[in-house]
Parts: sequence; structure tokens; C-alpha cells
Amino acid sequence: MDTTKVLIGSRQASEIEAMLSDVPPGIEVRFLPHGESMRDHIADVDILFGGIGEDVMPAATALRWVHQPHAGVEGFMYPAFKASDVILTNCRGLYGTQIAEHAFALLLSITRRIPDQLEFMKTKHWERVPCVELAGMTMGILGLGGIGRAIAARAQTFELNVIAADVEPIDKPDTVSEFYRLDGLMAFLAKSNILMVCCPSTPETHKLLSDAQFNQMPNASYVVNVSRGKVIDETALVTALQSGQLAGAGLDVTYTEPCPPESPLWEQQNVILTSHSAGSSQHIRRRAMQLFIDNLHRYVKGEPLVNVVDKQKGY
Amino acid sequence: MDTTKVLIGSRQASEIEAMLSDVPPGIEVRFLPHGESMRDHIADVDILFGGIGEDVMPAATALRWVHQPHAGVEGFMYPAFKASDVILTNCRGLYGTQIAEHAFALLLSITRRIPDQLEFMKTKHWERVPCVELAGMTMGILGLGGIGRAIAARAQTFELNVIAADVEPIDKPDTVSEFYRLDGLMAFLAKSNILMVCCPSTPETHKLLSDAQFNQMPNASYVVNVSRGKVIDETALVTALQSGQLAGAGLDVTYTEPCPPESPLWEQQNVILTSHSAGSSQHIRRRAMQLFIDNLHRYVKGEPLVNVVDKQKGY
Repeated sequence: MDTTKVLIGSRQASEIEAMLSDVPPGIEVRFLPHGESMRDHIADVDILFGGIGEDVMPAATALRWVHQPHAGVEGFMYPAFKASDVILTNCRGLYGTQIAEHAFALLLSITRRIPDQLEFMKTKHWERVPCVELAGMTMGILGLGGIGRAIAARAQTFELNVIAADVEPIDKPDTVSEFYRLDGLMAFLAKSNILMVCCPSTPETHKLLSDAQFNQMPNASYVVNVSRGKVIDETALVTALQSGQLAGAGLDVTYTEPCPPESPLWEQQNVILTSHSAGSSQHIRRRAMQLFIDNLHRYVKGEPLVNVVDKQKGY
Repeated sequence: MDTTKVLIGSRQASEIEAMLSDVPPGIEVRFLPHGESMRDHIADVDILFGGIGEDVMPAATALRWVHQPHAGVEGFMYPAFKASDVILTNCRGLYGTQIAEHAFALLLSITRRIPDQLEFMKTKHWERVPCVELAGMTMGILGLGGIGRAIAARAQTFELNVIAADVEPIDKPDTVSEFYRLDGLMAFLAKSNILMVCCPSTPETHKLLSDAQFNQMPNASYVVNVSRGKVIDETALVTALQSGQLAGAGLDVTYTEPCPPESPLWEQQNVILTSHSAGSSQHIRRRAMQLFIDNLHRYVKGEPLVNVVDKQKGY
């Protein structure tokens, strides 16, 4: 039997690459040389750790499995990949903790006026400004996957009433008081003083939140987006912020990334942008590589892989 | 029987003052006129809502009870007040929720690099910077009163190991894994990646945290202070921040307030100052007045008051 060839699509820190000494026998690990095209190194590769563009896919004639070292996989949703037999796995489940921390950082920074206090510090100015207490409010979590559940657990001890909406029928966890399907989105939004956007980018969620949706929320609500910018119609978001219908928005993601200079979000009052860093953690690269290596062992043994993406659903 | 005279020491919002229509019969409520001295209005007052200075105390010959509409009472700890029979009540128990929210705002702003991202926004710069995941760390809570407990509850769902230290012997709540008395302070600090300062200002806590204490903490730890600045030796704090022994500090309070212009804290990297606003909440003034009115009803009925301060302990 031929060796199984694995290509690591981007260089990792040395201690992360060292973890690959634990791959099963019969696996050959290669690294894509820095600055070279994946197209020139993909032809006989069985397993890819990393993304593969639509232009490279025709050259990947031996490819059987791709592992995306992140959670979002919308970059793979082009026809040739979706139609292929190539298995796609991702890192869902490894992001809940740090993204939930980031979501609360965004929300609490707004309600506790951290941006104003940081500005005061520049002129050594000491001034109490009114802050907003979250307890007793209703938090609506849009997308009750691993990230949404991690946020829900934390929200419960912040004395928030947590409700959730998802495209899938889900057994709601104890941390969630009410669960809605997408046909109940408007009823869900009507109760949400805080909207946590945690759903993947799919055709169904594209600009799901626009004028009517923001206007449905209680006055002076908050929106935090830690999943995908394409879920939000940003023109509608800015309108809602300017009218005061929304009291603030914490956005780790934007419709186009990097957020373009012409976006009004950069200068909009009560908006915090954080450059798609919610997934950042001192532990994430080690965890992502460990998940891949564990899956490699399953692959060699012929066991089912974990975190297989449904390419038709897109998550 | 004479009417019982209540003086409200500072003007409140009209809807808060309107709550005083609910005082029991036989109570006369007065408001200290704006800009006038309390000394000229205190002589026949039985009950004061607000602080009373050492200079005014000799004129308060009829005073029987003072309600402090905040939690901290160190301003009352001068000899003439401590030695008097005047009962002191405070608003402990009304601050845990919003101060816990503020404590997490400070902590998460530092670990999720919110100050850096806010600076990036000014030049429309999009850059992921490494963030620190809190989960798995140990949080040490110094002072396990209402605020410490509210923080402990939230910390547990953030997947933190929560330990606590207090001057009093306390039945530890389920959210706390280990409890220390002050004689175990150094052992407590040795485990604390995050130190939450939640204890009152007393002679016993004055500059309790100095060089030896910060050096006892694990390297690159975090300190958040949401109670009283006098607990921290700020020279030692700055030294520990500059050496990297501390990775950051979120301070709602400082040794002297307002924080003086010459303080190095204003310009110290990885410090956030928030102008003693942790107690701010859209609900606090209503809650504080309701507590006072409920106590007034108890007072008239001869029932024990709630939130009576032990003037010898100072909290």
C-alpha cells in the first residue's frame, strides 16, 4: 500500500509542527514551502490541512480529505468542492470558550463605557459616566452551536434570560429558556435586548438581520457579532445605531474583511470592531492540530472522522 | 410624640424623591437645599440619608441613624462617629451585580485587547492581535462579600477555578473551590492567575497588596480592583506591571481619587482606569432609596434594621 500523503498548507509554530511526530505509521507529512503555490504541491496529496481555493481544486486529483483548521467553511462552498467526494472536517467545538469570552468582552465594554474611560485616561480625566446593568435583560442567541451554547452558559450566571433561535431543531440546553426556529425569528428578536450573532454564513443567513429585524428589537438594544459579518446588512445596522434603536454594537466580523476604509462602522459611535480575533487563544493552534492528529488516527483505522461538515448545509 | 425628622443629604432625581411619599406616618422628610451646609440643617435631624463629615458631627445632637447610600463606609470611621450611639446602615448587597459586570468588563477588555482594537479603529486598521483565553486559570477573590460572591458565580461559568480569601471565617459557597483566611494570603496569591480585589478599606487591608504579594502571584497575572484603592500599594503595582510580573490591571478605584495627574497609572501600559464607576447601574438609585424606605418602616415599628454596619470592624 502507498503511503498516505498529508500536506500542511501553512507553516505552524515549531512546537505545533513537532506534534506531527505523532502521526500514524504510513503517513507522510509535507509542508507547503513558504511563498509557493499550493497548485504545484497538491497533485498526489491525499489529505490537506488548510483551505483549498476553487482555482487549485482541479489539480487535487488524489485529494480525499480536507481539514479546515478553523470553524467557518464558507470558503469551500464552491460547486467543484461541494460536488466532489472529498471529506471536509473543521474545528467546530474548539472555539466556544474563547469566542464566548470575546463576546462578553465586546458586550461589557459597551455597557461599562470602557471606550469612554480609555479616552479619559489620555487627558488624565477622572469622570464617572453612567453604565448599564445587564442583569434582568433578555439575551437572544442566534445560532445555538458550540459558540452559542458557551455564551448561553455564561449569560445565565450574568442573570440574563437567555433565549435562542436556530435553523435546526435542537434540544435546548437548560441554560436557554425559550427556543425558536427561524420562522419565529421576529418573535425572538422582539424579546432580545441583546442579540448575540453566532450562526454560520450560509445562503439562508445572508443579510438575515436587516432593517425590519433591528426595528423588531426593543429600543436601545445591543448587537454582538462573533461569527460571520455576512449575516448582517451593515447599512441597516448603521441606520439602527444612528437612530438609537440600537444602543451599541460589538463586531468581531464585518461583511467584507478587512473592514474597508469607506465603511461607516469605523467611525460610528458605540461600535467596537475587533478584527476577527474572537477565536484567538494561547491554546487554539495546539488544540486544532491535536484534533487533526486524532482524526488522522481514526482515518488510518477506518473509523468515522469527527467534525465532518455537511457540504450541502455548509456547516 | 414628636415627628421623626429625616434629612436627605443630596438631591435625587425627581422619580427617586417621589418614592419618599411611601414613608410611614409621623416621618417628616426634608431635603438639604443645594449649596447649603449640612451643619445648618442637622441640629434636630433624627435620621440622615447620606454622609456626615467629622466637622458636622458635633452639631448633629439629635442624630440616631445614618444611612449611607453606597457600600463603602470608611468616611464614617472617625472617633466621634465610631464612639457615638448613632446607627450606621449602608447599601451592601445592592452592588454585587453591576460591580461583577464591571469587574469582568475590566478583565476581559485586557485579555481580549479591546484598548488596542479601539486604537486601530482610529486609523481604520484591521489587525488580529493575540488574545488570552481565561478558561482553566485560577481566579483569587480577595473579600468574599456580596461583590466577591457575584464575581465568583460568574467566574465559575467562565471555566475558572475560583478560590477566595477573607478576613472573616465564611462558609464558602459552591462556586468557590478553596477558602483562605488572611494568614493564608500568600498561599492564596501563589495560585491566583487573576486577583479580584473586592474587600473593604480598613486598617487591616491598607496596602495589603504590595511588592511581596504581587511577586507571589504566578508570572503574567492580572489584577482587577473594584472595591477600594487603598488596598493596593500603587508603587508596587506599577513595578509589577513594568516588570511583566503582572500582565495587566483593571482599576475602578485608586489610592487617591480622583487619580492624581502625577500618578504613573494613567500612562502605564495594560492598565485600564474607570473612574469609580463600577457601582453605576440604571437601577441603583431606586434600589438604594427602596432599601432606605424599607428600613424606615422597620425603624418606626421598632424592628431591627437591615445592613447595619459594625462600626468597630468598619464594614
